[in-house]
Amino acid sequence: MRESPVVVALGGNAIAPPSHRTSRSAQSELVRATAEHLVHFSERPLLVTHGNGPQVGDALLRSERSADVLPRLPLDACVAGTQGDLGYVLASCLDDAFRTAGVRRPAVALVTRTVVDAADPAFQDPSKPIGRAYGEDEARARMAASGWIMKEDAGRGWRRVVPSPEPREIVEERAIRSLLATGAVVVAVGGGGVPVVRGGDGTLVGVEAVVDKDLASALVAADIGAEVLMILTGVEHVAIDYGRPTQRDLQEVATVELAAHARQGQFAPGSMLPKVRAVLRFLERGGRRAVITTPELSEKALAGEAGTQVLP
Amino acid sequence: MRESPVVVALGGNAIAPPSHRTSRSAQSELVRATAEHLVHFSERPLLVTHGNGPQVGDALLRSERSADVLPRLPLDACVAGTQGDLGYVLASCLDDAFRTAGVRRPAVALVTRTVVDAADPAFQDPSKPIGRAYGEDEARARMAASGWIMKEDAGRGWRRVVPSPEPREIVEERAIRSLLATGAVVVAVGGGGVPVVRGGDGTLVGVEAVVDKDLASALVAADIGAEVLMILTGVEHVAIDYGRPTQRDLQEVATVELAAHARQGQFAPGSMLPKVRAVLRFLERGGRRAVITTPELSEKALAGEAGTQVLP
Repeated sequence: MRESPVVVALGGNAIAPPSHRTSRSAQSELVRATAEHLVHFSERPLLVTHGNGPQVGDALLRSERSADVLPRLPLDACVAGTQGDLGYVLASCLDDAFRTAGVRRPAVALVTRTVVDAADPAFQDPSKPIGRAYGEDEARARMAASGWIMKEDAGRGWRRVVPSPEPREIVEERAIRSLLATGAVVVAVGGGGVPVVRGGDGTLVGVEAVVDKDLASALVAADIGAEVLMILTGVEHVAIDYGRPTQRDLQEVATVELAAHARQGQFAPGSMLPKVRAVLRFLERGGRRAVITTPELSEKALAGEAGTQVLP
Repeated sequence: MRESPVVVALGGNAIAPPSHRTSRSAQSELVRATAEHLVHFSERPLLVTHGNGPQVGDALLRSERSADVLPRLPLDACVAGTQGDLGYVLASCLDDAFRTAGVRRPAVALVTRTVVDAADPAFQDPSKPIGRAYGEDEARARMAASGWIMKEDAGRGWRRVVPSPEPREIVEERAIRSLLATGAVVVAVGGGGVPVVRGGDGTLVGVEAVVDKDLASALVAADIGAEVLMILTGVEHVAIDYGRPTQRDLQEVATVELAAHARQGQFAPGSMLPKVRAVLRFLERGGRRAVITTPELSEKALAGEAGTQVLP
């Protein structure tokens, strides 16, 4: 298996149904369906990364609800915990899907840390909402009591915001390469990786932040020399003039054009914009092709026949 | 690094202080101290396994406390979550300890599944207590409402009991071997591994059970051809007549003698007995030496000069 790897980044839509709070089995079914779409990558070294937004919010809520009897979990611990749980579910579903398809490739999930820069400006401007929404009074009480920074999230109430610094280095990159070389399907960089900063003596220390999973996926994809970065989400294409009568789906687009759309504010922050930024980052760093589409279209998209195909 | 691996199994005492509920930083400090004791294994392929008893209890408690707003987490999910969190903490502390000692060996944590037999008699006799203790009335209400089986734990109240079936196969064994071959310090088989049973079609399905971490460590140690299995716990030696005037520490003991002591009921179930059983299992399956001692004595114990040394 000497072909160049494919990195597939799974968004929330691919691993957590909107109603995931009602049932864990519904989540498993969704992951199972997503995994089945990935068996057509059976001839390629395959790294699967994934988000953890709803799950890390749930972990924080569970921690809050037990804060009278147990220590509160810091955010790095919550991210690491979701890597364990989601890594287990994804590895199991990938194993099943590949075996059912007659392909003998074991899946293995790695706990992954992502180094960020302590001087990243994001630490001065926490902006990524996480966890549940609170009413204003409760939010103000929580900010006073815990030092959290909270902001009003349009229409949803007040949510905690945390820094989302740029990923600089994937600590487990070498381990990922080694396992890919054995033919394993590797699950890693969950939730963008556990965010750590490097101290002067080289020590890595966890921080209260979250790393964007698409940017972290782009970083690891470039580092391991992936040929294709595929970001799977809830829409078949990247669109410009999204939701307007002039909406137009992008089929094949060059980085220079996509970057221009981004500068014009075509993509929603916290939604399509980070995906577009990740794709541009990957192609700047030597990637040959990036794709944004749904899990259902991933096979055709790998062949260049569906989704938004981005080329250098 | 072609020497035969050493497997080090860390018990609760090595990774969670008795008062761990009061502080997460106290836990980190303890793990850090334990990791520093392991740098003397720097010349050997090293697999570190660990328990998760207190942590999985905490995860269940957090899940319980949030059951009005979030789905309850099944036990396999809790075990997987603790593998993520503890794997992150252990890998970080091991990295720091090795770097400080001037040894360039990255640590990497793997999510690990352990296959158990659906026909294991343990499923008919759940006996492993997990999670918090309840008063009798609340325990009876919970059993009626949730289908839990609960038993009175001497002096502590009523606790949920779950099956603790024998580990049969470590799903990630090949990945563990591959990573050891790269020189990485591998953290795996946390909490004995996420327990799964194999369906007729090969599918692996999570079950509500916990696997004894020492037995799972013995299994993986034998499978990867480890020379030494070292079980680190809170006592320097295995003792017979423990707590009596005739107490005697075992220094060097053959399997046949240790097995005889076990048959005579010398070792407490749920405490020293599973460690002794694990050691015997490892040596039966081809291991050359097993040691039970504290993290502090592990260096001398590796040299054969401390702890209880068990030989075939």
